[in-house]
Order: sequence, then structure tokens, then C-alpha cells
Amino acid sequence: MAHIRKGTPEDINALHALICELAEFERALPEVTNTPEQLLKDGFGENPLYGFYVAELEARVVGIALYYYRYSTWKGKVLYLEDIYIQPAHRGQGIGEAFIKVLETHAQTEQCARLQLQVLDWNEPAVRFYEKMGMSIDKEWWNVYKTI
Amino acid sequence: MAHIRKGTPEDINALHALICELAEFERALPEVTNTPEQLLKDGFGENPLYGFYVAELEARVVGIALYYYRYSTWKGKVLYLEDIYIQPAHRGQGIGEAFIKVLETHAQTEQCARLQLQVLDWNEPAVRFYEKMGMSIDKEWWNVYKTI
Repeated sequence: MAHIRKGTPEDINALHALICELAEFERALPEVTNTPEQLLKDGFGENPLYGFYVAELEARVVGIALYYYRYSTWKGKVLYLEDIYIQPAHRGQGIGEAFIKVLETHAQTEQCARLQLQVLDWNEPAVRFYEKMGMSIDKEWWNVYKTI
Repeated sequence: MAHIRKGTPEDINALHALICELAEFERALPEVTNTPEQLLKDGFGENPLYGFYVAELEARVVGIALYYYRYSTWKGKVLYLEDIYIQPAHRGQGIGEAFIKVLETHAQTEQCARLQLQVLDWNEPAVRFYEKMGMSIDKEWWNVYKTI
């Protein structure tokens, strides 16, 4: 079983590589403009913009779970899971469940009202996984955005 | 025309009142468990979890725009508009456009890659407004969450 631990600056290249693998699965690799250098600056500065956990197996990072804090005007502080990815060869071994459990504990420790994430509407295995983990799905909202 | 300015600790009661008005419009007032005390602590501590702008008219707050920073693994730092609300009597006077323009400038100053928000799928006037402001709408994602 892989070991789940907090990500460090030494994990940045592995983090970037797995972000790209996930983007490829999401049919959106050209959308990734972020770089290892920017990830290092954003995750380990004075006010980090995000944090992450890694799943390590035989000294290799085989999965990542990247989070940051959101703010709900209704509920307060929210732990948001931006990316969760496990390499195909290492699925079905409980790493996803282990990540979600670590994040639930993290959310409790940091006094967050919620653990939250988004899922693509066509990603049925992911929808079933989150439902199995006791999460609720809200289909009512659309995302609106503008490139700056 | 209302004056747009940054929110201060003195605006917290007005902020909470307008958050409740918006929740009522969204058919979800009982969902609001946040309080003025918690909003004050979360918005004005050492590492503020959010910030906000107000629209002021004759010394009264008639609109709010509450934001925080998200992190996109693909794009980097994102300015996220959590709540935007203008009291019904003060609509159609350009306050919404003024908020969006101030937030676009804010996003540029803070080197954000995007200004982003969410809209309820049944809120057609809002969808038309954001499209008029040059924003794009992505209907492909569902929200997944768990109460902690």
C-alpha cells in the first residue's frame, strides 16, 4: 500500500507531471499553462495559495491530492480538493479512499465546514466513487469565468 | 450612482444582511449559518479568507461583491467572486457592471489568470448579464461536497 504524506518542494516536478497526466485524461492537456517553477512559488511562499498530499510507493509519487481553502458566505471556511489523481497502474488499491480520509481529517483540524470538489458530468466512475465515500452531488450550478 | 469601495470591518452587519437577502432570493435562507462575528474574524484576521467591495448610496450599503482567491493547477491564481448582490430597488443603474469592472482590475493587479464565479442554471437574467460582460459559461462540471 502506498504511503500518504504532505507534499514538499522536492515533489514539485512529480506534482506537475501528474497534473499533466490528469489534464490529458480530462482531454485538456493544452490548457495547462502552469509550470513547476510557478507551482513552487505559489505553494511554498509566505501565504501559500495551495497545499498537497502525495501517495508514495517505493520512493515514487504515484498519486496527488491538491487542495486550497475556499470561503462560503453561508458556511465559512471550506477545504476544496482541486485535483485528485492516481496513476492507472496503482488504482483499485485504496489510495483514493486514503486521500479522502486524510482530507476529511485535515478539514476537521482546520475547522472547515465542508470538504468539496468538482466532477465532470461524464466521469461516471468518479461520481460513483464520491457517492460511495458519502459525498453529495449538486448539479444545479454552472461555472462562469473570464480570462484576465 | 452608487460609489464602489473596499469593504471595512464597519460594513460587516450590512454585509451579513445582504448575504441573507441573496440567500432568500436563492431559496436557501435556512442554509446561512455564518454570523457577523465569524465574518469579521474570517475577513480581517492575519490571513484573511475573503475580501469584499460595497456599493454605497447616501451612506447606505445597497450592494456587495465578496471574493477570495482560488488556485487552478492549470492556470495558477484565480480571483473568485463568491457573492454579488444588489438590492432590487437599486438595479438597472450600472452597479453590477461597476462591480465586475472593479474586480477585473483587482484580478489584473493581483496577477490572477482568471475572474470566475458560478451561476444557478435557472437564473436566466444573471446568465445574460455575465454573457453581456464578456464572460464564458461552462456547463460541464458538477459540484461534489461533504459536510464536515
